[in-house]
This record gives sequence, C-alpha cells and structure tokens, in this order.
Amino acid sequence: METLYVIKIGGNIIDDEHQLHSFLETFASLEGNKILIHGGGKLATKLAEKMGIQQQMIDGRRITDAETLKIVTMVYAGYINKHIVAQLQSLGCNALGVTGADGNLIQAHKRKHATIDYGFVGDIDLINTGLISNLLTQNMAIVAAPITHDLKGNLLNTNADTIAQELAKAMSQEYRVELIYSFEKNGVLLDVNDEHSVIPKIDPLKYAELKSKELIFEGMIPKLDNAFAALQSGVNKVIIGRAEDLLSLVTGEKGTMIIHE
Amino acid sequence: METLYVIKIGGNIIDDEHQLHSFLETFASLEGNKILIHGGGKLATKLAEKMGIQQQMIDGRRITDAETLKIVTMVYAGYINKHIVAQLQSLGCNALGVTGADGNLIQAHKRKHATIDYGFVGDIDLINTGLISNLLTQNMAIVAAPITHDLKGNLLNTNADTIAQELAKAMSQEYRVELIYSFEKNGVLLDVNDEHSVIPKIDPLKYAELKSKELIFEGMIPKLDNAFAALQSGVNKVIIGRAEDLLSLVTGEKGTMIIHE
Repeated sequence: METLYVIKIGGNIIDDEHQLHSFLETFASLEGNKILIHGGGKLATKLAEKMGIQQQMIDGRRITDAETLKIVTMVYAGYINKHIVAQLQSLGCNALGVTGADGNLIQAHKRKHATIDYGFVGDIDLINTGLISNLLTQNMAIVAAPITHDLKGNLLNTNADTIAQELAKAMSQEYRVELIYSFEKNGVLLDVNDEHSVIPKIDPLKYAELKSKELIFEGMIPKLDNAFAALQSGVNKVIIGRAEDLLSLVTGEKGTMIIHE
Repeated sequence: METLYVIKIGGNIIDDEHQLHSFLETFASLEGNKILIHGGGKLATKLAEKMGIQQQMIDGRRITDAETLKIVTMVYAGYINKHIVAQLQSLGCNALGVTGADGNLIQAHKRKHATIDYGFVGDIDLINTGLISNLLTQNMAIVAAPITHDLKGNLLNTNADTIAQELAKAMSQEYRVELIYSFEKNGVLLDVNDEHSVIPKIDPLKYAELKSKELIFEGMIPKLDNAFAALQSGVNKVIIGRAEDLLSLVTGEKGTMIIHE
C-alpha cells in the first residue's frame, strides 16, 4: 500500500500569511500522496462583522444561518481555498481545491439536535473515495475546504477536524494513511503553558490515565477522541503537532503520536 | 469524436435565483460531456459596496486591485461556483467546480497595457486539457469560475466569455465542440429592442455586411469576434441565445448560429 498524508491545518496558521506560506512550502516538498484540509481562520468572522451579520457560537461551533453560510462559503471555499491552491501551484505542487459538493466528494446531512438549531451545519454520511484516488494517481494534491453538501442543493458548514478524520478513515481502505493535525502548538502538552511539555506518545492506556488525572487540556479531548476513532477504523498513524514542524511530524521526530496500542 | 458542450452563462441569469435554477435543470438534463462557465453577476459589486470598496470599470472590465481580487475570488469561486455545483448535484448531475488555478487548468499572465493598469486581471496563456478530459471521461460536468492564475501564486480575474472561448478551442483537439453563449436575449438581434428580430445564422460575409451597415449592437461585437476566432481554431459550432432556451439552442431551433462559411 502507498502512503497517503491527510493533513489538517488549523485556523491560526491560515490567518498568518508568513506562517501559511512557510507551511505550504513544506507541504509542497512532501513526496507522495497528500490531502490538505484547511479550517477557516478569523477571516469569516471579520467579514461577517464588516457586513453587520451577528455571529452566534455554541460549544465552539458557529451557528450557521443562511447569511453566515454564504460568508463561510465565500471565505473557506473561495478566498482561502483558492489562495492556498495558487500558492501551491507556484511552489511546483499541482493542487486541486474542492468542497464536499464537488464531485459529490463528501455527502452530509443537516445536523439534528434536540434543543439547538445549528442551521446549515453538516454531519458527514459518506465519502466518495473513487475521485480522490483518481486525482491522487494523477499526482494531484487535494485541498479541501470545510464545506459539504446534502445532495438536496444545500451546502453545509462542516468541522474541518471531522472532515480530516473521515477522509483519513475512508481512504485507509486503499492507502496506508497518516493523519496529521497541525496547529500552533508543539503537540499534546502536559502543561498547556509549557511548549516543552509535549507528550511524545499516547496510547489508549496513557490517554485514560491522563484524562483521569485531568492532565489533558479540555480543548484537546475531541481531537484525541477523533484520533483514536480514526486508528480503530484503519488509519495507520495520527500525529498532532506544530504546523511549522510538518516535516519533523511526518518523520516522527516532533509532535505527539497517537497509537492504537 | 464525442460532442462536448462548452456553455457560458451570463451574469443576469446568475442574479435571478429562479432563472438560474431552471437553467441548471436543463443543463443537468443535457446528455454527454459538458462544461459550464459562469460570470459573476452583480453580487461582487454589491459586496464591494457593503464593504466600502470603491469599484472602477474601464471598457466594461473591472479594475482589479488586491481588495477587489479578494472579493471576486470569494464571490465567483466561492459562493456562485459552489452554489451551482450543489444545485447540479441535487439535480443528479455530478459536477466539479474549478478555477484556473485548480489542477493548473488555466494559466494566465497579468494584463500588460501601455496606459491602463488593470490590476489583477489575467490574459490566458495555456489550457491544460488532460485533467479536463479525465474528469469528463468520469461523467463529471465541470463548472468553471472566471478566475485564473499566473503560476507565481497570484489569482487573476479573467473574462468569462474569453475563458469559454479558450476552453472550447483547446478542447476541440479531442472533441466535437459546441460553444454556447447563453444570456438574457433571444440571440443576436437585428433590432436590439425587438426580441423577435433574431438573426438565425451569421457567416463571415453576413457579419461584414451587418457591421458595415452598423446593424450589430456594439456590445455584441466582441462576442461575435470571439465566436469567429473560435470557429477558425477548430470549434464546431457557436450558438448565442437565451439561457432559458438552452435545449432549443442545442438543437438549433432557437438562437443565432455562427458558422464559418
């Protein structure tokens, strides 16, 4: 099996032109099959403010009314996605930008919740791996924006971490998948204020121990739960670490490696 | 040779949700290979106004400074492109939305002009037909936004009519290409105020005659010049007509057909 890197890049990196470019240089230089999933950064919030559209957040998720959907579609699928693709092209990396609607790549449904109406937020049902494999075979890097669709004509705002996880899981039927969550920290930290306190490896036992001692920063828990779920569904490796260390994350020299056992 | 429809849809249709949906229904029902190129409509201008960005037009072309480029990228490649793709998916037509940067499909350079600085406006150098053929072979309709790139990291705002023409020309090596310019009029009109005055066929001789008698509406001349250039470069047919008549344009029952001789 060939290796496929599924790499999520966090919002804070996207907001910083210099950091983003340096990350893309490394991404472009990575040999082999690769998919980049980007979040949205603060640009969508800024644009909504400029346009006088009130943003509502519940549990870290944006409530996506029709106007907000328009904005995130413009910012994520338009500006950020194409900006990244154009930069990758200039770095000699042939890239194709997509949303889940393109080629029906990621089908989702509008989130159902007993008490909260999240609006146009999507939970993923299905990944169509055929087109992805075909593009990868043509040496194309895929750049995915966190927008899916419901096959009924609606675009849906969808969490980028979840897209990365679902893509990694689906592609692990055909590839040896390494899922990399890159963001603005060195990895999973024992002390959230100390960048030197990276935990190099976490297996399920260690994770249970860290959680019981409340040593895991709360914001990290969904990422780690996602990581273990991915490993159980066939993903080979999950690595969490600093975006600018991408090469060292791939080689295992830096970041936190999440392993099955 | 298989037939390929290269269909440009004009801005006024895009601005009208109902007309757009009805057009997309017909487009989805068209059998065979197809590429849709959309313009931008008035949404970009409206968004620029809301954001307080002054728009400057010279000879019907938007002067594209860095802020305007951001807006057209968001609106054309983000909102309009993905909105169309999601609707086509709901109509059973598997579509993939692209800009010229995606897969390096359309390479361009920043327009050079002796006196006017058009800003980030692109003139096309190269169409990479390989990926397009590959996607068409997979029964994928391609939806192209009027944005190209220069392979140096810059996105470029590019005239949608010109993209349609260049795509049609490039693809005519492999396909029997029919290029259709669909907009809000019945075709090329003898009297611009009379929708019943459609000229059913124009060949070079007729065109020369119409021009010498000043019977061609000025805004039509670049479209017709483009049409004849396309025919000379191998495009099989060029048809100009009303978007809602798409099926009758394809069968030759309505609109104006531009022919080589």
